[in-house]
Amino acid sequence: MIIVETIDQARQAVAQARSDGKTIGLVPTMGALHEGHLVLIHRCLDECDFTVVSIFVNPTQFGPNEDLKSYPSPFETDCYRCREIGVDLIFAPPVRQMYPQENLSWVKVDKITDHLCGTSRPTHFRGVCTVVTKLFNIIHPQIAYFGQKDAQQLRVIRRMVADLNMPVEIRDCPTVRESDGLAMSSRNANLNPAQRRQALCLSQSLNLAGELVNAGTVDCAIIIEAMKAVIEKQPDARIDYISIVDNELLQPIDQIDRAAIVALAVHIGSVRLIDNIMVDPAAKNI
Amino acid sequence: MIIVETIDQARQAVAQARSDGKTIGLVPTMGALHEGHLVLIHRCLDECDFTVVSIFVNPTQFGPNEDLKSYPSPFETDCYRCREIGVDLIFAPPVRQMYPQENLSWVKVDKITDHLCGTSRPTHFRGVCTVVTKLFNIIHPQIAYFGQKDAQQLRVIRRMVADLNMPVEIRDCPTVRESDGLAMSSRNANLNPAQRRQALCLSQSLNLAGELVNAGTVDCAIIIEAMKAVIEKQPDARIDYISIVDNELLQPIDQIDRAAIVALAVHIGSVRLIDNIMVDPAAKNI
Repeated sequence: MIIVETIDQARQAVAQARSDGKTIGLVPTMGALHEGHLVLIHRCLDECDFTVVSIFVNPTQFGPNEDLKSYPSPFETDCYRCREIGVDLIFAPPVRQMYPQENLSWVKVDKITDHLCGTSRPTHFRGVCTVVTKLFNIIHPQIAYFGQKDAQQLRVIRRMVADLNMPVEIRDCPTVRESDGLAMSSRNANLNPAQRRQALCLSQSLNLAGELVNAGTVDCAIIIEAMKAVIEKQPDARIDYISIVDNELLQPIDQIDRAAIVALAVHIGSVRLIDNIMVDPAAKNI
Repeated sequence: MIIVETIDQARQAVAQARSDGKTIGLVPTMGALHEGHLVLIHRCLDECDFTVVSIFVNPTQFGPNEDLKSYPSPFETDCYRCREIGVDLIFAPPVRQMYPQENLSWVKVDKITDHLCGTSRPTHFRGVCTVVTKLFNIIHPQIAYFGQKDAQQLRVIRRMVADLNMPVEIRDCPTVRESDGLAMSSRNANLNPAQRRQALCLSQSLNLAGELVNAGTVDCAIIIEAMKAVIEKQPDARIDYISIVDNELLQPIDQIDRAAIVALAVHIGSVRLIDNIMVDPAAKNI
């Protein structure tokens, strides 16, 4: 496994692999790799000849009062895990490599970013799209992998790739959960034991939503109220949003009359967690 | 010469050339090719093994009250001229190829777009950057060519390429002028004979600015006033802007104490024309 910090080194390593006729796959991450990331990396290893994992805590996707500084970065452990499973290249640039001067150029996706995390994190997806565009332009993967845990990010990236004719295929993997249901997230490391227990309210409220839809409830307001009650039982939980949106443009819907996403963001203490499930009244959910 | 209308055909033709080891050059145009375009194309032919000219009147770079509908498109003549000089591929997609659905994803460059044409055409550069990004992602040129006539566009594109790590080199060619000084522009075709004569005021006022700088004038307000007087002599001329800006971020300056751009946009009747010159107090200008 090669570990490189500069864009030139990354380009060189990938160019070599490409000239050997290899399929290049990219798993963009902010490090602090968990089982969710590993599922993406394993899928990349299965489907591509040359697997690149980028590790970059991208400052432009954090707002001014967000957790950029406390974001975990266990770089040695991340490298160890990647080496163990056969990753070919880790691209771990310092901030100055990616942003050598004031960044003036942004990739922005309208509409899909209007709700959910786009409301409380107004510059977040602009930062995500911009850094992902940069990574695509540096690595030129044929395939790139994103998790369904970040449901809005996945759809934003898919639309960006389609609208801008980016020559890359986007594949996704389902959310990986702890045995008790908590969605894997690098931010879970910042929960203390009491918060960790309370954090279960996210997946529990989503399970309840799935059950209600399976039982025939279609009114989104009713479902959201029931979810809210589950979360408000936890003393350290503060709801950012609970929303039910259509599966394409992520616009809020009143009735679940088609495939939809139930999504939420909840602060547990100072840690903001997100989770979501897909529901489809035409199918049994969960 | 191959003429293709679809993205797939363009990608296929270019992939073939690339796999033959050829250097790919792109000259993005909106058609109505004039000598200015031909200088760009000739330079591309000289420096690259496979020259692609895109011809696409991009609707997203026109504002609602602009001249999208009257923009000239003599497609047969354009093809004839390209074939004659040895262009390898014309990519001339219909609007539906480039924008098959509502475009939600935009590439935007801040600051450099704040003044000059950015003021009166607030969505123009967003449209330019977005379509150029699309063309780069479709054609993957190693080199792309832009004219200095569109001085702001050139600098915006250069910054976009740098900020987003686009793997393409931007080269530029100087403005080509008619024998009387009028900068070549596809829009000149929409001038009637009386307007054509009056349109000379753009280059004349720029020449005057160059002479003033050469004579030691550094105060931008004085230079701009003198230019204004030249233009206001023409009955059908209406000034959009006359500005003097620094050569990198295109911010207005008060004193010409370094390399700068003198730029203007003037409506002659219903035709909006732009022109510019570089001035440098450390060198003799024009």
